[in-house]
Amino acid sequence: MHVSELAHIIDGHRAGYTLPQSMYVSQDVFDHEMASIFRDTWLFACNAAEIKAPGAWLTIDIGPHAIILVRGRDGLVRGFHNSCRHRGARICLETNGQSPRLMCPYHQWTYKLDGSLLSARGLSTDHGDEQIALKPIAVEDVCGLIYICLADSPPPFDTFRNAVAPYISPHQLNHTKLAFASDQVHNANWKLIIENNRECYHCRGGHPELMKCLVEFDLPDAPDANTELLDAATMRWDKLGLPYAPVPRNTDFRCIRLPLNPGYLSFTLDGKLGCNKLLGDFKDPDLGSLRMFHAPDNWNHFLSDHTMHARVTPLSPSKTLVRTTWFVHEDAVEGVDYDPQRLAEVWLATNSQDGHLSEINHKGVQSSGYMPGPYVPAEWMVQDFTDWYLAHLRGYCDDGG
Amino acid sequence: MHVSELAHIIDGHRAGYTLPQSMYVSQDVFDHEMASIFRDTWLFACNAAEIKAPGAWLTIDIGPHAIILVRGRDGLVRGFHNSCRHRGARICLETNGQSPRLMCPYHQWTYKLDGSLLSARGLSTDHGDEQIALKPIAVEDVCGLIYICLADSPPPFDTFRNAVAPYISPHQLNHTKLAFASDQVHNANWKLIIENNRECYHCRGGHPELMKCLVEFDLPDAPDANTELLDAATMRWDKLGLPYAPVPRNTDFRCIRLPLNPGYLSFTLDGKLGCNKLLGDFKDPDLGSLRMFHAPDNWNHFLSDHTMHARVTPLSPSKTLVRTTWFVHEDAVEGVDYDPQRLAEVWLATNSQDGHLSEINHKGVQSSGYMPGPYVPAEWMVQDFTDWYLAHLRGYCDDGG
Amino acid sequence: MHVSELAHIIDGHRAGYTLPQSMYVSQDVFDHEMASIFRDTWLFACNAAEIKAPGAWLTIDIGPHAIILVRGRDGLVRGFHNSCRHRGARICLETNGQSPRLMCPYHQWTYKLDGSLLSARGLSTDHGDEQIALKPIAVEDVCGLIYICLADSPPPFDTFRNAVAPYISPHQLNHTKLAFASDQVHNANWKLIIENNRECYHCRGGHPELMKCLVEFDLPDAPDANTELLDAATMRWDKLGLPYAPVPRNTDFRCIRLPLNPGYLSFTLDGKLGCNKLLGDFKDPDLGSLRMFHAPDNWNHFLSDHTMHARVTPLSPSKTLVRTTWFVHEDAVEGVDYDPQRLAEVWLATNSQDGHLSEINHKGVQSSGYMPGPYVPAEWMVQDFTDWYLAHLRGYCDDGG
Repeated sequence: MHVSELAHIIDGHRAGYTLPQSMYVSQDVFDHEMASIFRDTWLFACNAAEIKAPGAWLTIDIGPHAIILVRGRDGLVRGFHNSCRHRGARICLETNGQSPRLMCPYHQWTYKLDGSLLSARGLSTDHGDEQIALKPIAVEDVCGLIYICLADSPPPFDTFRNAVAPYISPHQLNHTKLAFASDQVHNANWKLIIENNRECYHCRGGHPELMKCLVEFDLPDAPDANTELLDAATMRWDKLGLPYAPVPRNTDFRCIRLPLNPGYLSFTLDGKLGCNKLLGDFKDPDLGSLRMFHAPDNWNHFLSDHTMHARVTPLSPSKTLVRTTWFVHEDAVEGVDYDPQRLAEVWLATNSQDGHLSEINHKGVQSSGYMPGPYVPAEWMVQDFTDWYLAHLRGYCDDGG
Repeated sequence: MHVSELAHIIDGHRAGYTLPQSMYVSQDVFDHEMASIFRDTWLFACNAAEIKAPGAWLTIDIGPHAIILVRGRDGLVRGFHNSCRHRGARICLETNGQSPRLMCPYHQWTYKLDGSLLSARGLSTDHGDEQIALKPIAVEDVCGLIYICLADSPPPFDTFRNAVAPYISPHQLNHTKLAFASDQVHNANWKLIIENNRECYHCRGGHPELMKCLVEFDLPDAPDANTELLDAATMRWDKLGLPYAPVPRNTDFRCIRLPLNPGYLSFTLDGKLGCNKLLGDFKDPDLGSLRMFHAPDNWNHFLSDHTMHARVTPLSPSKTLVRTTWFVHEDAVEGVDYDPQRLAEVWLATNSQDGHLSEINHKGVQSSGYMPGPYVPAEWMVQDFTDWYLAHLRGYCDDGG
Repeated sequence: MHVSELAHIIDGHRAGYTLPQSMYVSQDVFDHEMASIFRDTWLFACNAAEIKAPGAWLTIDIGPHAIILVRGRDGLVRGFHNSCRHRGARICLETNGQSPRLMCPYHQWTYKLDGSLLSARGLSTDHGDEQIALKPIAVEDVCGLIYICLADSPPPFDTFRNAVAPYISPHQLNHTKLAFASDQVHNANWKLIIENNRECYHCRGGHPELMKCLVEFDLPDAPDANTELLDAATMRWDKLGLPYAPVPRNTDFRCIRLPLNPGYLSFTLDGKLGCNKLLGDFKDPDLGSLRMFHAPDNWNHFLSDHTMHARVTPLSPSKTLVRTTWFVHEDAVEGVDYDPQRLAEVWLATNSQDGHLSEINHKGVQSSGYMPGPYVPAEWMVQDFTDWYLAHLRGYCDDGG
């Protein structure tokens, strides 16, 4: 599909309505998304604590992009394309591991953790003048959250970093460890999964477990805001010096601290802590939830006792991986301070429900009778996301693809 | 694929021969079929007795078309696209059900049985001026057979209705009930399944069960017609006032009553009735079989004791659903008057055999060595079908697609 | 994809480097390969001993090409497209069989073993003037190896035949019988499987079983050649009159006899014979291995006690069948002279390992980070293959596709 055709589809979008059908189902649009949004913007990769030791690595596959993230001996996290510079074989086959060097399993070409070629048996020195190294990608670390960008010239990252760092840093991600991980693959376009996440209009009908914990209002000045609950919470947060006010509205990211429902300290069915050892220097367990979303693919909750990170990874136009990870204090003891299953059960149920809803959404959207429909006012964050999406795609078209 | 290319393929067809390869295997041709034949012509949906009560509904998926058929409080059957006017989610998830209203499971938008929007929590009244309702499709009912058309301006239905009603009405479908249903998915193009149905040239080699019941000749004046059997039958039918002569030959539909083999009252292995309670006002069990075909997707048998309807639904160029349903008198008692398995066994075996034959046909047709081959004279109804198909597709091309 | 675009991809290839990405993953390139390389060149089919008796047949599916090979009453092997000239159905459904005639299972049209139509019930004589017969393909037999070509005007075969016949004929394939067959389907492009086969650079790291038997050097004058081993072997072969010198280097085929490792008479884990009854007139069991490769799809090993033939058959851009067959003397007795599992175990293990390596190669090559990489000098035969491939494809483009 030529970018002029993509631009034509973008032009066909009606403000305040869901996207045109082809944006949800077309392989051509998907391919353009992989060449634009999933190449040119910052994508969430992982909590840096997942690869804490030198040589620890993990792999991420985003559509056609196969990525290795690895911690160097110098403590820095680097990213590379997961393809050997010899015959192109995949180098790291598992989802994660740890090794002193990166060795291709095909012909044992071996790379240092900084990506440079260490050895290649029998390679002619004719190629000695040209630098053979793993193809790098850009990596940023904000308070222990790793973001990556596959573009040769990544866009600025500092506006986001500066805005969210004060909110996140008290949770001290660098002193956390992975407590639980869930990979769910849903038969739905990735944007339907993001749209689903950006509104709680469906929560009442769809999420009995989550609705025990989560307040339904999304802004302090929302018409349905519980001001009594809010005032009590902000007084406590002010005393602790924890920022909570929403960052100025923008379509790139959102960051806000909101209370949980009365009686709920964490995302657990009984409202008690999911981990008795609190994060960072926290003493007060009642910190509500710091919610942070970063377009296009990442949402997070930071609580007093754990953090939860979700990454939405497109696999095809109709198949998407949602990876969710839960982190607790690195000194917390499993079976003593926390039970991983109990820590995760509210969001595991919620993610399964969201997966089902996204799948029936996809099924309906791919039918010939689908017509873009109107967002209701409560879906303003969905609109922010589709606005971000369309603006980015339009910029890509304007640049000639 | 541009329609000019499709027209070029049509031009390449040689009269009296099977269709060009791409018509059986190409996704592009399939997409055009879905936008023409499966949008602009009348398709068989179901026996109306499947949705007898107000609020009873069933769903049909035809390629990209997702349809709901629902009986209203006023007794009328209506059809809608199965996609919510909010965010497009699929509304009815199951194949059939019954409910006082149609509610989208995503955000609980609720529609009346006539498709109009009843409630949508939080919907801004900004959209109040524009009619939000489920997108309707055209529905026709001929003697209890429901046909649908997805076109904005459906073609006339009355020629067909007027021609076949006298044949069908004595079987009183409105006083039947579903006795058995079979869904078989075959890895073959839908047209190969129709072609297979339109000739009995393969019956002798392929259908031992069916050949016990079915006469092989297909017209009273066929060279192999059993005139003795025929004369005895028509004398009986004349006495009962049942029409039997074939409707004038046309490519849209066929309707004819023919006797079964001597000693056979129904499509059963032993020739006895499949249901002891006869349909309508019938007293005589020996009525042969009223055969009715309607292009592109439906064939039926109406007997003294039951009716059988087959719907051929394309799922992809190489995958087709054949749904077959058996109906008996609504007052017949299962286990007393009929055994569903016994009622269906001849055609269940036949359908499986036809599925296998269509699959080996598809396999050979998709190979590079396939060349269109000559129909034999006994395949005159296959030719009628391909003529109908090509004429319709040519009209679509002439109209610019 | 227009051939001009294919030509553009060919032009983008850098000499001495692996192929451009699209050549390994694109459906369009695959379709062109099926219309060029897999139509216009000689492909390996089987050892003729697989269809020894009149009426014995086997089927081969190569991408869209469905082929029957059958032995006639006159002893000749013929090839036909596996599609009935009536409605196109597949005629032979199994992988192999034996029958006095070829009968289509759909309407029982029946063909003689030479492809001519024997009977077609009810076929109008209007078609009598035109010859209805199975569509033939070209077949060549070189010392019992059957090659086929689907082109109307196949390229010359004699250069190959004349060059390799003196090497192969002493092994007397016509007096062999099938001892074991293995069909492995790998999720990799067929060229990656061929490339993998054309170098032993990966053997040391990947094939512990094979490396017990196989010498790693590939030419008598290779830098790593074991001259002591080689001199002893050639002296023996000279005495027996067995040719061993490599045929002059060319990209169409390779043929050379090389010794096995000291102490190894056959491809077995203990080095002992895999079959105690030797092939042909051989008395000396220590004949090393005659290696013969024929582009694009076939490699072989001919030993004193058995032969092994591999056929690489593309199924889709990312799926390939590797069929390997082992043959022993026709008079050898299973369980007495040979144990099929023991005969095959070294190469079964090797093929599985190669399949895995090809799959990780494909996985990396299909990622967006893949860049063509440099072949090392030890991969000269891989370069010969890609040179052959590119030259053939360029010729196809020059001819207008």
